[in-house]
Amino acid sequence: MSFIKYGSVEEYKIEFDYSSIHILVDSNTKKHCLPKLPASLTEQANIIIVKSGEMHKTIDSAKMIWEKLSNKNADRKALMICLGGGMVGDLGGFCAGTYKRGIKYIQIPTTLLSMVDSSIGNKTGIDLNGIKNLVGLFYPPQVTIIDHRFLVTLSSRQILNGYAEIIKHSLIAKEETLFDQIFEKDLLKCEPEKLIPLNIEIKSQIVDQDPLEQNSRKWLNFGHTVGHAIEAQAMQKGIDMLHGEAIIIGMMIELELSTAKLGFPQDLRNKIIDWIKDNYRIDADWIKSEAKRLLNFMKNDKKNHEKRTLFSLLKSKGDCIENVECDDKLILQTLQRHRKW
Amino acid sequence: MSFIKYGSVEEYKIEFDYSSIHILVDSNTKKHCLPKLPASLTEQANIIIVKSGEMHKTIDSAKMIWEKLSNKNADRKALMICLGGGMVGDLGGFCAGTYKRGIKYIQIPTTLLSMVDSSIGNKTGIDLNGIKNLVGLFYPPQVTIIDHRFLVTLSSRQILNGYAEIIKHSLIAKEETLFDQIFEKDLLKCEPEKLIPLNIEIKSQIVDQDPLEQNSRKWLNFGHTVGHAIEAQAMQKGIDMLHGEAIIIGMMIELELSTAKLGFPQDLRNKIIDWIKDNYRIDADWIKSEAKRLLNFMKNDKKNHEKRTLFSLLKSKGDCIENVECDDKLILQTLQRHRKW
Repeated sequence: MSFIKYGSVEEYKIEFDYSSIHILVDSNTKKHCLPKLPASLTEQANIIIVKSGEMHKTIDSAKMIWEKLSNKNADRKALMICLGGGMVGDLGGFCAGTYKRGIKYIQIPTTLLSMVDSSIGNKTGIDLNGIKNLVGLFYPPQVTIIDHRFLVTLSSRQILNGYAEIIKHSLIAKEETLFDQIFEKDLLKCEPEKLIPLNIEIKSQIVDQDPLEQNSRKWLNFGHTVGHAIEAQAMQKGIDMLHGEAIIIGMMIELELSTAKLGFPQDLRNKIIDWIKDNYRIDADWIKSEAKRLLNFMKNDKKNHEKRTLFSLLKSKGDCIENVECDDKLILQTLQRHRKW
Repeated sequence: MSFIKYGSVEEYKIEFDYSSIHILVDSNTKKHCLPKLPASLTEQANIIIVKSGEMHKTIDSAKMIWEKLSNKNADRKALMICLGGGMVGDLGGFCAGTYKRGIKYIQIPTTLLSMVDSSIGNKTGIDLNGIKNLVGLFYPPQVTIIDHRFLVTLSSRQILNGYAEIIKHSLIAKEETLFDQIFEKDLLKCEPEKLIPLNIEIKSQIVDQDPLEQNSRKWLNFGHTVGHAIEAQAMQKGIDMLHGEAIIIGMMIELELSTAKLGFPQDLRNKIIDWIKDNYRIDADWIKSEAKRLLNFMKNDKKNHEKRTLFSLLKSKGDCIENVECDDKLILQTLQRHRKW
C-alpha cells in the first residue's frame, strides 16, 4: 500500500535522520512551489534544478542529477524530495532508485495530474529516443504528500490536463460516484481538490492488487496505447502537448475500439466523447495525418507482447479488459475516421 | 537465497517462455565464450556486443544496450543473458533491471572473479565520472550458471584476479578450510574450480543475511575502500589494472589499518602480506605517489556516511567489523609507508 499524506510538509514533519537533503525542482516549481516549502527545509537542502517539460525527462538530465548528488557527497542515507509534476517525479524517482543503488525519496506532486496519477504507484522512468519511460524501475517513495496549496499555482490548461486521468479513473472504476460527479456536471463547476482522495483510492487499489503490472494494473493503461503514441509523435514534431491532452484523445480512440472489439455501449460512448469535445480542443486533422506514424509508435509500446499491439479496453463502464489485440487495419481506420466524431 | 546452478546452459535448459532472447557479450567473450553456448540458443538470440574493460561500464554503453533492445522490439517478457566477467554482468544486470522497468536476466560468469564474486549478490551498476558503481540497483537474476569450461579460456593473470576475492572470503569467513587451502599451499597448485562452491557459499550466506547492505554485508567490502580508490585512480590515469589487482593492494593496506585500529595480530598479518607479495606484483611506489588522490577517492565511497571515511576491518580472521572510521592522517601514513612492507 502506498503511503499517502494529505497536508503540508510542515504537518508531515520530515524525520531528520537523513545525512543530506536534495530537492529536485524544475524551472516552474522552483519559482511557484519551492517558496511554499518551509525555509527550515529549503535552507539546508541542495536544490537541483532541471529544465521543465517532458522533453527533458532524459538520460542527460538523470546524469546531471547523479552528478549533482555525487558532487555534494550524497551518501546512501541522503533524501531526495521531488517537487513538481510527473516529469520531476518520474525523473527524480528514477535517479533516487539508482543513485548508489537506491536512496530514499519523497514525492510532493504539484500538479493535479501528478497528484491523481504519476505520484501514485511507484513507477519511475525516463524517455529514450522518443519512447516514453523506456528506462525506469518500480521504486516506492517513502511518502507522497498531497498539498492542495499547489493547485492554485496551476493554469486552467494544467487543471484540464489532470482531469484526463480523473476521467479515465471514472471510466475504469466500478465505483459510480466519480463518473456522476464529472459527466453529470459542467467540468468547470467541479472543485478538483474534492475529487483527489477518491482518485487516489481508485488508483491505489488497482496498483496494490498488481504492483508490477502483470495483469489488472494494465486497466490503468486505458487510453494510453494511443495516448502515448500521440504524445511521442507530438514531442518528435516539437508540438506543445501535455500528457493529459494526448490521453484524452487516446481515450476517445480507444472508446471507439472498445465498441468495435468488446461491444462497449454506443450511446454511453457518444455521451462521453461529446462531453470531451465540449471541454477539450481536439485537432482531429492532425491525428488523421499522423495515423500511420502513430501506429508505428504503438508497436513499440511497453504493454505489447510478441509484436501484437495490445490495448486495455472497456466492455462497459467499470469493466476493463487488458491485453486486447487490435489489428493494424482497425487501428488505422479508427484514427482516420475523425470527421465522424 | 540466490539461485545458483553448476553446469552448462544445456543442462539448465532455459525455459523458452520468453518473447525474445538477448545475449550481452564483450569483444573477448564473443570470441572465446559465445561459441561454447549451444547453437540452438545463440542462433535465435540477438547478440549485443560491448567493448571489453571496466572503462566501458558507462552510461553510454547502457544507452547502447537499451537502444539495441528497443530496436529489436524487446518487450517485458524478453530475457537478457549476461555472458562475461563482472563488467558484463554489472552492466547487463543494470540494463535488464531498468529496461521497461525490468526484464528477466541470467548471469553466466566467465571469469573466476565473477564466478566467486560479482555474479553473486544481485548488485548491478555502472561507473560515472570515475566513481565505481555510482549508478545501479539491487536486481536479482533468474539464475547464475557456473560453468567451469570457461575457466580454461582464462590467462593466469585473470586467475590471480579472481583469487583476490577468494583470499578476501578466506579472511572474513569464520569457516577455516578455505584459508588453509590457500595460505598453506602454493597458489599455483590450487585448482580454482574446487574452491568455487565454498566461495559462493560464503558470499551467499553473507548476502542473504543482509541483502541491501545495511550492516553485515559490508564485511564483503574488506579491502574495497582502498581497493576501489586504487581502481578508480588507475582508470583515470589509463593504467591497465584489474579489479582483483587493486583489491589485493587494498587488502594489504586495510590489514595494516586492521592492526592499527582493531589489533589484528601482526604475525598473521605479516604472513598474509608476505604470501601476497610472493604471488602478486605490487607497485608500492605508485601507491605512495598517489596517496593523496587515493584518499580523495575514498571520501566519495558509497560505504561512507556523514563524510567519515569508513572501512570494514578485521579484528581477527573471521571477525570483521563494519563502519570503522579511520582519520585522514592514519590512512595517508599507511599508504605512504610502503617501503616497510
